[in-house]
Amino acid sequence: MRTGLWLIGARGSVAVTSMVGALAIRAGLAAPTGCVLETPELRHDALPGIGDLVFGGHDISSTPLDKKAAALAEAGVVPERLASAVQDALLGIEQDVRPLPVTATQGETARAVAADLDRFRARHDLDRVVVINVSTTEPAPSPHPAHADLDALRSALDGPDPVLPPSALAAYAALSAGCPYVDFTPSTGARLPALDALAREKGLPYGGHDGKTGETLVKSVLAPMFAQRNLRVRTWSGINLLGGGDGANLAEPAANAAKAASKQRVLPGTLGYVPEGDTRIDFVADLDDFKTAWDLVTFEGFLGTRMRVEFTWHGCDSALAAPLILDLARLTAAAHRAGRTGPLTELAFFFKDPLGEVPHALAEQWRVLRAAVDSYASTTR
Amino acid sequence: MRTGLWLIGARGSVAVTSMVGALAIRAGLAAPTGCVLETPELRHDALPGIGDLVFGGHDISSTPLDKKAAALAEAGVVPERLASAVQDALLGIEQDVRPLPVTATQGETARAVAADLDRFRARHDLDRVVVINVSTTEPAPSPHPAHADLDALRSALDGPDPVLPPSALAAYAALSAGCPYVDFTPSTGARLPALDALAREKGLPYGGHDGKTGETLVKSVLAPMFAQRNLRVRTWSGINLLGGGDGANLAEPAANAAKAASKQRVLPGTLGYVPEGDTRIDFVADLDDFKTAWDLVTFEGFLGTRMRVEFTWHGCDSALAAPLILDLARLTAAAHRAGRTGPLTELAFFFKDPLGEVPHALAEQWRVLRAAVDSYASTTR
Amino acid sequence: MRTGLWLIGARGSVAVTSMVGALAIRAGLAAPTGCVLETPELRHDALPGIGDLVFGGHDISSTPLDKKAAALAEAGVVPERLASAVQDALLGIEQDVRPLPVTATQGETARAVAADLDRFRARHDLDRVVVINVSTTEPAPSPHPAHADLDALRSALDGPDPVLPPSALAAYAALSAGCPYVDFTPSTGARLPALDALAREKGLPYGGHDGKTGETLVKSVLAPMFAQRNLRVRTWSGINLLGGGDGANLAEPAANAAKAASKQRVLPGTLGYVPEGDTRIDFVADLDDFKTAWDLVTFEGFLGTRMRVEFTWHGCDSALAAPLILDLARLTAAAHRAGRTGPLTELAFFFKDPLGEVPHALAEQWRVLRAAVDSYASTTR
Amino acid sequence: MRTGLWLIGARGSVAVTSMVGALAIRAGLAAPTGCVLETPELRHDALPGIGDLVFGGHDISSTPLDKKAAALAEAGVVPERLASAVQDALLGIEQDVRPLPVTATQGETARAVAADLDRFRARHDLDRVVVINVSTTEPAPSPHPAHADLDALRSALDGPDPVLPPSALAAYAALSAGCPYVDFTPSTGARLPALDALAREKGLPYGGHDGKTGETLVKSVLAPMFAQRNLRVRTWSGINLLGGGDGANLAEPAANAAKAASKQRVLPGTLGYVPEGDTRIDFVADLDDFKTAWDLVTFEGFLGTRMRVEFTWHGCDSALAAPLILDLARLTAAAHRAGRTGPLTELAFFFKDPLGEVPHALAEQWRVLRAAVDSYASTTR
Ligand SMILES: NC(=O)c1ccc[n+]([C@@H]2O[C@H](COP(=O)([O-])OP(=O)(O)OC[C@H]3O[C@@H](n4cnc5c(N)ncnc54)[C@H](O)[C@@H]3O)[C@@H](O)[C@H]2O)c1
Ligand SMILES: NC(=O)c1ccc[n+]([C@@H]2O[C@H](COP(=O)([O-])OP(=O)(O)OC[C@H]3O[C@@H](n4cnc5c(N)ncnc54)[C@H](O)[C@@H]3O)[C@@H](O)[C@H]2O)c1
Ligand SMILES: NC(=O)c1ccc[n+]([C@@H]2O[C@H](COP(=O)([O-])OP(=O)(O)OC[C@H]3O[C@@H](n4cnc5c(N)ncnc54)[C@H](O)[C@@H]3O)[C@@H](O)[C@H]2O)c1
Ligand SMILES: NC(=O)c1ccc[n+]([C@@H]2O[C@H](COP(=O)([O-])OP(=O)(O)OC[C@H]3O[C@@H](n4cnc5c(N)ncnc54)[C@H](O)[C@@H]3O)[C@@H](O)[C@H]2O)c1
Ligand code: NA
Ligand code: NA
Repeated sequence: MRTGLWLIGARGSVAVTSMVGALAIRAGLAAPTGCVLETPELRHDALPGIGDLVFGGHDISSTPLDKKAAALAEAGVVPERLASAVQDALLGIEQDVRPLPVTATQGETARAVAADLDRFRARHDLDRVVVINVSTTEPAPSPHPAHADLDALRSALDGPDPVLPPSALAAYAALSAGCPYVDFTPSTGARLPALDALAREKGLPYGGHDGKTGETLVKSVLAPMFAQRNLRVRTWSGINLLGGGDGANLAEPAANAAKAASKQRVLPGTLGYVPEGDTRIDFVADLDDFKTAWDLVTFEGFLGTRMRVEFTWHGCDSALAAPLILDLARLTAAAHRAGRTGPLTELAFFFKDPLGEVPHALAEQWRVLRAAVDSYASTTR
Repeated sequence: MRTGLWLIGARGSVAVTSMVGALAIRAGLAAPTGCVLETPELRHDALPGIGDLVFGGHDISSTPLDKKAAALAEAGVVPERLASAVQDALLGIEQDVRPLPVTATQGETARAVAADLDRFRARHDLDRVVVINVSTTEPAPSPHPAHADLDALRSALDGPDPVLPPSALAAYAALSAGCPYVDFTPSTGARLPALDALAREKGLPYGGHDGKTGETLVKSVLAPMFAQRNLRVRTWSGINLLGGGDGANLAEPAANAAKAASKQRVLPGTLGYVPEGDTRIDFVADLDDFKTAWDLVTFEGFLGTRMRVEFTWHGCDSALAAPLILDLARLTAAAHRAGRTGPLTELAFFFKDPLGEVPHALAEQWRVLRAAVDSYASTTR
Repeated sequence: MRTGLWLIGARGSVAVTSMVGALAIRAGLAAPTGCVLETPELRHDALPGIGDLVFGGHDISSTPLDKKAAALAEAGVVPERLASAVQDALLGIEQDVRPLPVTATQGETARAVAADLDRFRARHDLDRVVVINVSTTEPAPSPHPAHADLDALRSALDGPDPVLPPSALAAYAALSAGCPYVDFTPSTGARLPALDALAREKGLPYGGHDGKTGETLVKSVLAPMFAQRNLRVRTWSGINLLGGGDGANLAEPAANAAKAASKQRVLPGTLGYVPEGDTRIDFVADLDDFKTAWDLVTFEGFLGTRMRVEFTWHGCDSALAAPLILDLARLTAAAHRAGRTGPLTELAFFFKDPLGEVPHALAEQWRVLRAAVDSYASTTR
Repeated sequence: MRTGLWLIGARGSVAVTSMVGALAIRAGLAAPTGCVLETPELRHDALPGIGDLVFGGHDISSTPLDKKAAALAEAGVVPERLASAVQDALLGIEQDVRPLPVTATQGETARAVAADLDRFRARHDLDRVVVINVSTTEPAPSPHPAHADLDALRSALDGPDPVLPPSALAAYAALSAGCPYVDFTPSTGARLPALDALAREKGLPYGGHDGKTGETLVKSVLAPMFAQRNLRVRTWSGINLLGGGDGANLAEPAANAAKAASKQRVLPGTLGYVPEGDTRIDFVADLDDFKTAWDLVTFEGFLGTRMRVEFTWHGCDSALAAPLILDLARLTAAAHRAGRTGPLTELAFFFKDPLGEVPHALAEQWRVLRAAVDSYASTTR
């Protein structure tokens, strides 16, 4: 199954780390550590392989992929030797990474994006193309009536004023071109009633939001522990210190608020109540792509005794995200092939703020994912 | 269902905290925080209630229960006002807490223990008595051929030399008296082939070992997270600082070794391999019943990137253990009533070193437990 | 030397903890742990003793002192048994804790405050009265030309509009009444040119600002370590989680900003440069008077190697502050007796944001303090 | 002032890191971060410069220096580019790094070592040679009467049985050859009455023991903070996780005990009493040269309130030690030139377990060091 993976934000850290990794794994230079589909429980021959993925994408930046790979190596995100080894292969991808089209109306932009997707599919003779958004997190968009109605949206897009934030426009274009769409960012993406309607009209699945790679991942296993042990969480406070391009952007209050909200959702979802406390995000440029998160949880046990647990997570964000991008591409392709349409709630395992009414405990999400993989693997249209 | 709860080590911290709590809950003075059977998912009218439990036990100490309760209040384990409120009720339990019989042979001791259990059942007109071992952790016992053979054991017990460590003798006596037996300590207890045979002969269930109340609990949710995300744990090291009676005993190298081994089992059980690193236990008298555990986990992600998480757990051991004692008594009684015999592998959720071939991930253990509760609740002999 | 200690904010946590403590120490019920003047190096018979302190003060709240003491006991700040033991003695102080006068102009208020101070001095036949501000932290005040000129200030105070924030008005009144003044809060207090002029005119000393009781204290010993070892601090980020009355107030952005700025000053002062990173203050009501602060320091060593240290401080703010209030009262009284006037730069040891050009390393501040104590003790007017 | 720096253990991590660093600094490729003598307060033209140091040494290993440098680069201790840049210069040092002489008696060995030192001095026309021991930590030696008497020692060394542990033999040889000697390890070295006598006879200074580079460094600033604030430390417990050659050796119980004892001395020295708690050292090979230490301090404040601070130190041991080796060589050469003889108590700043009756607070040690540097710089024989 030849599968296209079209990345919105293809020159960013997550995107390029995923390319370097896929190329290195394909060349036998690296193991697929961090790829969920390579665990014994989820490995399936019927899924597209990492080696079946063909990369392309849009970006507003023009930094060459190999330059970015070298910068990632310098920052310790990928090993120097792998960045060098895949340099030629990255040059091969360059031709499929295109500047984001700039046109007079959002409707035209959408058609230009869809045309890029069609050309990509044709050139590489792909069975399908999955579009994944790994571009800069947007601020929450202003509401607009056309967000709720597909026909209204179609007309509005050809008007002079922008109607959709960039992520939603990308989702619109992808779905219009017959491509399943996944939002790895907390941005709006396909999360609008009009786009849900479009996905269903086209018989396409979509997924999101906001890859779960650090503090929220830990939360999604610790919070159920408290619930299952009937220990009452009184406060849960945390701070995330991060640098990198993503960090710089999240220093903007609006983007920060979107992300912080996304990070807290796991608590009511697993505990059944909202403990006191907030999650902060602070930009510390010098930390680069390595993030340090600290959380303090205070809880109450038998007869009211007060106790506490704190943890410090020190992770490399792009290294944690990149293998999930490969997983999501493979899963979404398989879901599409299996005929799944609408929101892929079975992918909640991957997201901080998953679509739909889904379990928030990681273990539950894992079971749901496992069942989905079995069903994708056994269904072929 | 009037259920006896006979505690070996009835004057210890865990035992007395569980008594104070049960009495306070019964009197409406405290909520059953920390009691797993009081979560919405596990609450069942068909299980014996906390109010149905009747306490008794053996100990080698003669400290009055109310003195111990006052000491626990002084140490911040139970609130002063609850210790005072249940003082009279504790005096009522005194008559059922008896000195451990001392006799010429282990066989005679077992018969004396069994006689105490019979008298307890009769006096309170109990449907059944569950025996739970919350006494001091023993060193690992010397092997003896009679451990593997029930007939050999029966003869050996009447010989002049001790054959069984105290915990196994307690299990032998309990089972002989028709009582289900649970080992909350890491000691041998019922974990000998001869005692398994005895349980089956008598049609009795038994459970254990070693209540999971702190660092290992956190391990049992964090380790599966790494496995499910295909992140390779390279090292997992930890230290437990604890005071209290249990801490003093664990400062003995032999007991310490037993406990530390028990604490590490969760890693191979969930990861499928053994990462480097050890778990230390250090006695720090001044910390009293409050334990601080610190763990460092280093792991490897995509393309070999090194990352780390560390956590500090600051818990009150007896406050964490006591509600589980109430749960175990209720569950084991229900299992017995439902006709379960042999090792209660479905109770793995509660133990660091559970009996049988069972899942080590907390979430899996929770599902198994939930199914068991449903089955106990629906089955009545 | 009978010394009055007049507290602005006399019904607050810090104030009442210092009263309970002084009374308990005087009664031989507690040791003076946390009192710097009771270390072997600083103990001097020539200083006023803890037992020589006579308490009084102003507050806008009317909660009785013994009620507040009971609440502090409930929260674990002071032991229940001490709060009970000093209950009568607290009632004795009640008559000297007066509502803050409310009048038509700030000038009148100042005169009413001064009159209260005079009455207090007379009633108890005191050698001197030290005024210490432990009231709620104010937002930074609007600038006013009269702040820089004592004559202009005197006229402006009798105008209809408020010129000074409450802390500065308190300082004005105290100095006018011949009382040395100390600001334990980050508020303006005596830190205005016009008030400095007043202090010099009256021959009075004053001290401040912002008691150093937690994270900044640790910073003031860790930062010099990096400097002396020639290790380059790259980032220093932190978060303070605190509840209590002070926490609630600091949740206000303006007060928070004042406090956070005050907390960061130690870094340039000891390192000689400003590393990246911020200090956050978050209000978490449930933590009450117990504050948890977490700091991450990343630094660079030989040949650029990156390293890090993180610390978690879990302290009881009022318990840390109260003994320093006793120290400051005794020191300021001794300084006054010894003829010191103007800013007491020798008290930098006690403050986050000390007055004057002073060392920021705790060890240096300690040496300066020690020399000052020797000089106070040897000088008597 | 051309100064020889003769390293016992010249092929180890600390030694080779110090060589790479000195060569890189000399070549203008790196800044002297971590070198204490390069702080503004201690920089002095009268001290030998880093560029004046000429390297040589003994080792029992034969790994080439550039191979070791490459391994250190691989492990992230030194940057790859610096290891490459100084490769040729390292080859130049090779000829001066000699196998440890193996002879029939310890006396002969000492003479062979001394002859190596003489040749080294002559070949490079050095003003003086400082010998620093950075070899593997030894177990504590068996006592021997000759340790206390120089004449007895001289005769015993020519007997058939070994009298001295290797570090003390190295010290004996160095002093016999007229070279000042410094022990960076916790081993015996010059710390024997007979060797003190030898140093005085020869008019030589010596220094030690056990470089202070991590947890103990932090202790030496935190402990004085508690003392100066009159806060009572109740427990101080810690664990050090370390890999590397040094870690492997410290996994041996005897060496571990020597090190752990050395690490705890700072507490009584600064607090005036010994709090409860121990310091553990655990070998975790995978951590390599990066050490993680965690400490928990519980303390008591005003009226007995319990509080706590914990810290995690994540440092690269060789990167922390290497610049101190350069400092110690320069300081000891200057001390020698200035005519200092006997134990260099003024170097306590550098050591966990300093010689003599010295302050244990880092700030005090720094002041003593500063005065010493001034005095060395102003004195020239
Ligand atoms: N790394 C993680 O762990 C993680 C987890 C969850 C979510 N995310 C999200 O993934 C996204 C990417 O993270 P990153 O670290 O790679 O960030 P990055 O800044 O390195 O890359 C973002 C890229 O998007 C490009 N871009 C910006 N606007 C665009 C547009 N309108 N169209 C196309 N390209 C555009 C930028 O030029 C840049 O190359 C962020 O939104 C981040 O919040 C990352
Ligand atoms: N508290 C926890 O979180 C936890 C978790 C897992 C296991 N455990 C285990 O529970 C046990 C009890 O812990 P604790 O804190 O209450 O200890 P404890 O020291 O307070 O109490 C133990 C009691 O057992 C009694 N005892 C000793 N030997 C006996 C014997 N042969 N027969 C009868 N009684 C005997 C002692 O006199 C004492 O009263 C320990 O083995 C501990 O390891 C506790
Ligand atoms: N506790 C610490 O460790 C610490 C350290 C540094 C600074 N401080 C400062 O000390 C102050 C007191 O802290 P707290 O925890 O006792 O707070 P708190 O809220 O318990 O007490 C403040 C008291 O001041 C009174 N008050 C408010 N405005 C007043 C006014 N205009 N005149 C007179 N009284 C007034 C309030 O009614 C209250 O009783 C705060 O400003 C805090 O920032 C405390
Ligand atoms: N790195 C630090 O932060 C630090 C701090 C304090 C003390 N130390 C001490 O410094 C020493 C060196 O540490 P390292 O990390 O470089 O260790 P290492 O194992 O890398 O190097 C030790 C070297 O000594 C050599 N050696 C062993 N026995 C010898 C002998 N008898 N004569 C000559 N050479 C011998 C070994 O072959 C090896 O090359 C250790 O004793 C360590 O405890 C290091
Ligand atoms: Na930590
Ligand atoms: Na911590």
